[in-house]
Amino acid sequence: MNRLYHYPISPFSRKVRLSLAEKKIEVELVEERYWEQDADFLLRNPAGKVPVLRMGSQTLSDSTAICEYLEDAYPTPALLPRGAEDRYEVRRLVAWFDDKFHQEVTSKLLGERMFRKVMGTGYPDSANVKAGAKAIKYHLDYMARLLDQRRWLAGNEMSLADFAAAAHLSCLDYISDVDWNRSEVVKDWYAKIKSRPAFRSLLADQVPGFPQPAHYADLDF
Amino acid sequence: MNRLYHYPISPFSRKVRLSLAEKKIEVELVEERYWEQDADFLLRNPAGKVPVLRMGSQTLSDSTAICEYLEDAYPTPALLPRGAEDRYEVRRLVAWFDDKFHQEVTSKLLGERMFRKVMGTGYPDSANVKAGAKAIKYHLDYMARLLDQRRWLAGNEMSLADFAAAAHLSCLDYISDVDWNRSEVVKDWYAKIKSRPAFRSLLADQVPGFPQPAHYADLDF
Repeated sequence: MNRLYHYPISPFSRKVRLSLAEKKIEVELVEERYWEQDADFLLRNPAGKVPVLRMGSQTLSDSTAICEYLEDAYPTPALLPRGAEDRYEVRRLVAWFDDKFHQEVTSKLLGERMFRKVMGTGYPDSANVKAGAKAIKYHLDYMARLLDQRRWLAGNEMSLADFAAAAHLSCLDYISDVDWNRSEVVKDWYAKIKSRPAFRSLLADQVPGFPQPAHYADLDF
Repeated sequence: MNRLYHYPISPFSRKVRLSLAEKKIEVELVEERYWEQDADFLLRNPAGKVPVLRMGSQTLSDSTAICEYLEDAYPTPALLPRGAEDRYEVRRLVAWFDDKFHQEVTSKLLGERMFRKVMGTGYPDSANVKAGAKAIKYHLDYMARLLDQRRWLAGNEMSLADFAAAAHLSCLDYISDVDWNRSEVVKDWYAKIKSRPAFRSLLADQVPGFPQPAHYADLDF
């Protein structure tokens, strides 16, 4: 059986979960409190992060390398388009969300408001929370500009870029940090992706100490 | 004419320069003091980072997305192998150097000892420098373990993984922060990559205020 070592509210784990589910690759989910640096886990993944995917005799780490591997090894359905320029645009946006959005928004809101409590590293830094709350507006507006011209974020087909974005936003939505009223096109995009069967397992996630808000799993939010 | 907006001692810029040179794609190099957030530069790249590659009407950002694009659009010579598992190993190691090595080593040594001065952000934090000097040993040993079993870092062919690693190490070598005596296989690997024609432009880099050390451009270091 394939196994994914993950953490429910990790956007990087969620991006891989969405790819696996979309490609109908079954995995057993194993929750990993990766920051506790369990020796067995470090042996599987010297980088010490989630997600880690075990498939047969292989142990795969790094969410982007895993998603590229899944594209190479399980090409249907494709989450990367065919042309070099279209593929570039998907990869640019995956990096946009996993690097820039993560640094400016996810780490500042989710990192301060949830992970500090879960990891036991003190109280949220309010300057960070404020900076994250400000930055998410800019990012939602950027998404709106893209979605004004395209059906999905990177083009007219759904791709890894949508999964990367939805992975971050869904984590933030769990702590009610996304203002869905800011942009109708962004809300419509999220409603489309949220209603996919691949999304179901994310909507069932529960983090102890953080009850799921009512709108989180509601397809008509 | 193609243009690469770069900064000489940026490992991400260097990785792209190596890929371009290996594929014999000519570019004009334009030095970009990206931290000054020049308005024209931000227009080209809203992420505000180097490198940015202009090719024809296209403007490409994010070093990993650029390298993948170059593989897709200019496949010969290949810097990614063909099999899904071999490609995964290259991508895992690119991420290893660009994420983990960068965070634990490059940002702590180069960031503190050179970028602070260049950017005018104060004196080096000695705790960071100490942590970086300690972490690089672990990383050199990890490379030695890989190179004990393989001709190049990710397998028996040279790949983007070697360029990512050499991009970081060459920047650190400019400030004499790499102990090449720690591992013979790592030194041999670096000598091989350093002697490639693609590496020449990196060896000619000069940063004002930081004279090149004698061994830096010496192929027999």
